[in-house]
Amino acid sequence: MSTFAVILSGCGFLDGAEIHESVTTLLAIERSGSRWIAYAPDAAQADVVNHSKKQPSPGESRNILHESARIVRGRIEPTTALDAAKVDGVILPGGFGVAKNLCNFASAGADATARPEIVQFLRAMHSSRKPIGAICIAPALVAIAFRGTDVHPKLTIGNDAGTAAALESMGSKHAACEVSDCIVDETNRIVTTPAYMLATCVSEAAPGIEALVREVIRLARK
Amino acid sequence: MSTFAVILSGCGFLDGAEIHESVTTLLAIERSGSRWIAYAPDAAQADVVNHSKKQPSPGESRNILHESARIVRGRIEPTTALDAAKVDGVILPGGFGVAKNLCNFASAGADATARPEIVQFLRAMHSSRKPIGAICIAPALVAIAFRGTDVHPKLTIGNDAGTAAALESMGSKHAACEVSDCIVDETNRIVTTPAYMLATCVSEAAPGIEALVREVIRLARK
Repeated sequence: MSTFAVILSGCGFLDGAEIHESVTTLLAIERSGSRWIAYAPDAAQADVVNHSKKQPSPGESRNILHESARIVRGRIEPTTALDAAKVDGVILPGGFGVAKNLCNFASAGADATARPEIVQFLRAMHSSRKPIGAICIAPALVAIAFRGTDVHPKLTIGNDAGTAAALESMGSKHAACEVSDCIVDETNRIVTTPAYMLATCVSEAAPGIEALVREVIRLARK
Repeated sequence: MSTFAVILSGCGFLDGAEIHESVTTLLAIERSGSRWIAYAPDAAQADVVNHSKKQPSPGESRNILHESARIVRGRIEPTTALDAAKVDGVILPGGFGVAKNLCNFASAGADATARPEIVQFLRAMHSSRKPIGAICIAPALVAIAFRGTDVHPKLTIGNDAGTAAALESMGSKHAACEVSDCIVDETNRIVTTPAYMLATCVSEAAPGIEALVREVIRLARK
């Protein structure tokens, strides 16, 4: 049985992990007969956003690991426990939390930096020829992790020209992709799908995520 | 196109709505070609629980509507806007939030009371012959809503004898049910499934929820 790391960044698309993307990822992994281990940074969120008003909730503070634990019913480990030797692949759901809590792409764009334990882990996965799946905005984190290396991943990020340009300036290649599909970089064993970069509801996001999980599992067995 | 109300009770199984049950419900509704409108009480949660430590987070306060909004990307209305004339059916995902934020079954058992606007809405749905679906612990809320009436719903609640006895003492009938299945009370047009009362992971919970959504949609068209 294959085991996949799923890295979460909070709970809710405006300040954490996108919940639909996270749950459909977990369900697709389980339905393939594989298992998952969830991880999140044990650190404060960059911010807290009221998802009803879609406005910041100033003065409020939440922990990324504690909030991510809501999505996985408490079964979660800190990202400092990530170990490429322990898993067969990794999948990163999206949500602004990726761009605010796992790295600072939301504020720094192409100059962004990411949490060192996640960069180290993603590079170790690539070196071990283990597949990386990244959903929605999460390909930006992959681009950051491989910026300045000789790895130039082909990645989806949706239709926003500025975001695509930021990825390209970090040394990645942007690929257009339908919301229901995913792009496979066979050389680097990296699979990406736009999900809520393009989707307007969960049934639009799910097929691309299910396709991504299938491809990540195929690459893990190759 | 049919429209279904989905009533949420927060975001996270220990103090709000069960996230996997909520997302699989939304996905199954959409995949059937129907649409959903989400509702939650605009009121303070009974408590806040740290889902990583599985311990109360004393002194912390969160709003049920604001937290539920995380699950539905901000598309949510207060339960005071519930109107049986506006929807073709209702589905209640589970989670301790149902028993703490929508009613007080968690502390008061068979003596529990529920939010009056939800009781009124569920009775209006029943009077209008519109189906009610209830997942996991949510059948307890249905039992409370019809306690003292001549409606005696047949409901699942999982294998816990004490919980089943509480339902029976409120005038409902408990029905045993496999996790992958659901029970249909054709007379009252009420569909229930145990989900995380019995499930240990999302792929175990999903088939029963998908079956429940299919049956609710069938009853809405009948």
